[in-house]
Amino acid sequence: VITDSVLSNKARNVLILLADDGGFELGAYLNKICQTPNIDALVRRGVVFNNAFTSVSSCSPSRAALLTGTPSHQNGMYGLHHGVHHFNSFDNITSLPNKLRDNGIYTGIIGKKHVGPADVYRFDFEQTEQNNDINQVGRNITHIKLLAREFLAEANKQNKSFFLYVGFHDPHRCGHSHPEWGPFCERFGSGERGAGLIPDWAPWYYRWDEVQVPYHVQDTEAARRDIAAQYTTMSRLDQGVALVLKELEAAGHQDDTLVMYTSDNGIPFPSGRTNLYDAGLREPLVVVSPEPGARRNEASGALVSLLDVAPTVLDWFGIKHEQEMSNEITSHDDDKPKSFLPILSKEPAPSEHEAVFASQTHHEVTMYYPMRAVRTRRYKLVHNLHFAMPFPIDQDLYLSPTFQDILNRTRSKQPLPWYKTLKQYYFRPQWELYDVRADPLELKNLHGKPSLAQTEASLRARLAQWQRRTRDPWRCAPGAVLERQQCRALDNGLD
Amino acid sequence: VITDSVLSNKARNVLILLADDGGFELGAYLNKICQTPNIDALVRRGVVFNNAFTSVSSCSPSRAALLTGTPSHQNGMYGLHHGVHHFNSFDNITSLPNKLRDNGIYTGIIGKKHVGPADVYRFDFEQTEQNNDINQVGRNITHIKLLAREFLAEANKQNKSFFLYVGFHDPHRCGHSHPEWGPFCERFGSGERGAGLIPDWAPWYYRWDEVQVPYHVQDTEAARRDIAAQYTTMSRLDQGVALVLKELEAAGHQDDTLVMYTSDNGIPFPSGRTNLYDAGLREPLVVVSPEPGARRNEASGALVSLLDVAPTVLDWFGIKHEQEMSNEITSHDDDKPKSFLPILSKEPAPSEHEAVFASQTHHEVTMYYPMRAVRTRRYKLVHNLHFAMPFPIDQDLYLSPTFQDILNRTRSKQPLPWYKTLKQYYFRPQWELYDVRADPLELKNLHGKPSLAQTEASLRARLAQWQRRTRDPWRCAPGAVLERQQCRALDNGLD
Ligand SMILES: [Ca+2]
Ligand SMILES: [Ca+2]
Ligand SMILES: [Mg+2]
Ligand SMILES: [Mg+2]
Repeated sequence: VITDSVLSNKARNVLILLADDGGFELGAYLNKICQTPNIDALVRRGVVFNNAFTSVSSCSPSRAALLTGTPSHQNGMYGLHHGVHHFNSFDNITSLPNKLRDNGIYTGIIGKKHVGPADVYRFDFEQTEQNNDINQVGRNITHIKLLAREFLAEANKQNKSFFLYVGFHDPHRCGHSHPEWGPFCERFGSGERGAGLIPDWAPWYYRWDEVQVPYHVQDTEAARRDIAAQYTTMSRLDQGVALVLKELEAAGHQDDTLVMYTSDNGIPFPSGRTNLYDAGLREPLVVVSPEPGARRNEASGALVSLLDVAPTVLDWFGIKHEQEMSNEITSHDDDKPKSFLPILSKEPAPSEHEAVFASQTHHEVTMYYPMRAVRTRRYKLVHNLHFAMPFPIDQDLYLSPTFQDILNRTRSKQPLPWYKTLKQYYFRPQWELYDVRADPLELKNLHGKPSLAQTEASLRARLAQWQRRTRDPWRCAPGAVLERQQCRALDNGLD
Repeated sequence: VITDSVLSNKARNVLILLADDGGFELGAYLNKICQTPNIDALVRRGVVFNNAFTSVSSCSPSRAALLTGTPSHQNGMYGLHHGVHHFNSFDNITSLPNKLRDNGIYTGIIGKKHVGPADVYRFDFEQTEQNNDINQVGRNITHIKLLAREFLAEANKQNKSFFLYVGFHDPHRCGHSHPEWGPFCERFGSGERGAGLIPDWAPWYYRWDEVQVPYHVQDTEAARRDIAAQYTTMSRLDQGVALVLKELEAAGHQDDTLVMYTSDNGIPFPSGRTNLYDAGLREPLVVVSPEPGARRNEASGALVSLLDVAPTVLDWFGIKHEQEMSNEITSHDDDKPKSFLPILSKEPAPSEHEAVFASQTHHEVTMYYPMRAVRTRRYKLVHNLHFAMPFPIDQDLYLSPTFQDILNRTRSKQPLPWYKTLKQYYFRPQWELYDVRADPLELKNLHGKPSLAQTEASLRARLAQWQRRTRDPWRCAPGAVLERQQCRALDNGLD
């Protein structure tokens, strides 16, 4: 897809700034408490998207989707890449870094990579958790700054266009791996005893009674303290973003680089990460185009998917987005990923037809809870394939003060000022249909409602079509078996 | 583990003959109809095991377990290796071929490999489905014979001890991939029109009304015809075994080679492959030792696991079975895999304490149905972790005449002379406890029976201990989360 964006002869580069489990704790997204002046400043230079969605709310699958333009079930990254989880994309998948490198672009990754196999996701410059300590390359913003400097100097030396992907590890939790640094590693590099010092970071602290509690988190002191810790970690991320942007400017590339800030998945709170509720799927997305006519300090309501990032980057570089890359069966389809560069010049007319899709299978290898979803501006349909088993809780969330508070209050029958019960959270129906415009909290399941029968049938058909086009191995589950591209009934009582 | 087996200075070799989905359709195992004179002849030269069990009833996981001495959850091969299933063992796993090669032994694989990554399972000589057509290297016994000849000539030329693993693809089904050759590819190479000709194979045909129907298959004409096709394919396997043994003799190694015949998993019929019922777990095992004092034409009742094959092979070669290879946490445990070479000299006293273990998670990637089991001579305890969802049916079984017959009869409410109903087969309780001595068909679930409370508790503790020792990521599921080696309750109503 080559759009009508203006292609010039000068260098064109891309910088992706990716948060890890980052949400809307950003001034630019109207959080009044959490201070993020640097990301807010980026917004003033470009477009902030209010309807950007990841296709999967899990780290490795989301990164694989972003770097290939294909959902997790299509590229093989069904769950987390590291340790016993051990998921990898298929060997024959074409990724953005490989495609760009083949086109003479200098590619680099700094920080969290979390995808594989190595040959499928090969950058010229790699400083990641695979050859460093994750906190040093993902949270030590002074170190990140210096690595960015090194990368940019090399790109200049080689006189090449570049693609730089900075995978911050903030604001990911670390209570599971490094409880000594606080639930969000908010003490790592703070200069406190035993925590080391990140020279470029001025940590900002928040009062627990002042934070903004998202609708999907209980309003208790424990949860609020957890959120306050998250905010402090956001200050490290925000300052890290500024440092990298300053390196970009110093290297002379502020005016020829497309810059994006986004996050891989929802925040690590209930209904967020690992969920297909909006708290899990909706992501911050800020895109700054250096083109003369580009929109500045504007918001877009367009429905975009992080699956669109790969075609956008290819579009920016003027590289054809070939069929081969997206591994598609049919050649034409409205629901295919597409470049959002045109949106950077002009807000498209809103359309009720637009949709984004999601596909989640594993997070940890033990957390099998396949879900598929389609979301338009008004409706969301979620298919929970393994609905008869409880929704799984990841190791990291489990140990969080917020989740422990829910558990403790439920056990001891204390008041729990939350929008759900733990039991509701665990046990979900096979199909969930929400009017997300009227019911943004996704509390009232409209599945089976007679007046919406046609809407539901049409969403279901559209989801099925997307699953077919993207070769979803789960497209017949749980009531049927996939045989030679056909679903054949198991007669197990499920549809 | 170095046993007291007699180690001589002459060459010592190993030949493993592995059937694919092979069961007890063997004269040596008292099947009166299916003719397998060559495997029966092998039995006369050695020991036939009546209580040999795989640790997992699925192809790649079983092969990975056999080649590493570790259960699937420990080596990472949680399901099938090929295609979208895409499972691989961890990169740091030590396998038998790698270990043997490091010790100067010439290693070869002919036929079905179905494990990876390549570096973890590296043989000096590889002629497998990864570089050939699977039917040519796995079912064309003339081709297999010539490859064995080539391997043995090279071993002789290099004057090395050898380890040769022949992975027959017979008697695996092929209705899913090659329906034109019949449900078991029994027409492949038969000389029929369009089926090619395998010069060394004289196919044997059976009357459907004469076959022996296993207890776990319905007694109907459709199932019987399916079994008759399986028997014909057994004739190809049996003659293939003879050809390879003849090559071994011709190469001068009949008297210095340990020969084993076994199968990776249960037969592809209901309750067989992908199940932890005995029909899925129990395997034929014939072992011939060339040692002067070895037992000949004897049966052993010892409880052995295919996890014991790796330590047995290392024992045979006099190579220390290091801790590192089995990736174990504790250094001493009765339930660890161990060499069965001593059994080839002398039948051990039967012990009620002996146990084998099983661990199944995926087969196809969409078939998530984790199960863990412990089996003693008398009892079997199975934990079905995802019991609330129906037991999954693989693509290959689904299309089989036998399963289609069950489906059709169930749908049309025709008589179904089967030991279960389809609904019972799909929906299983979380815990199944059988007195396999009194109830070999595993029909009467004794879980929760007060008189067996102590027995069940002790089996459950032993299974949990095995899961801990082998670092099972699922050891806390479904009621708890694994955190820092501890199970912590989810309060989701499950234990
Ligand atoms: Ca993440
Ligand atoms: Ca098999
Ligand atoms: Mg779209
Ligand atoms: Mg044992």
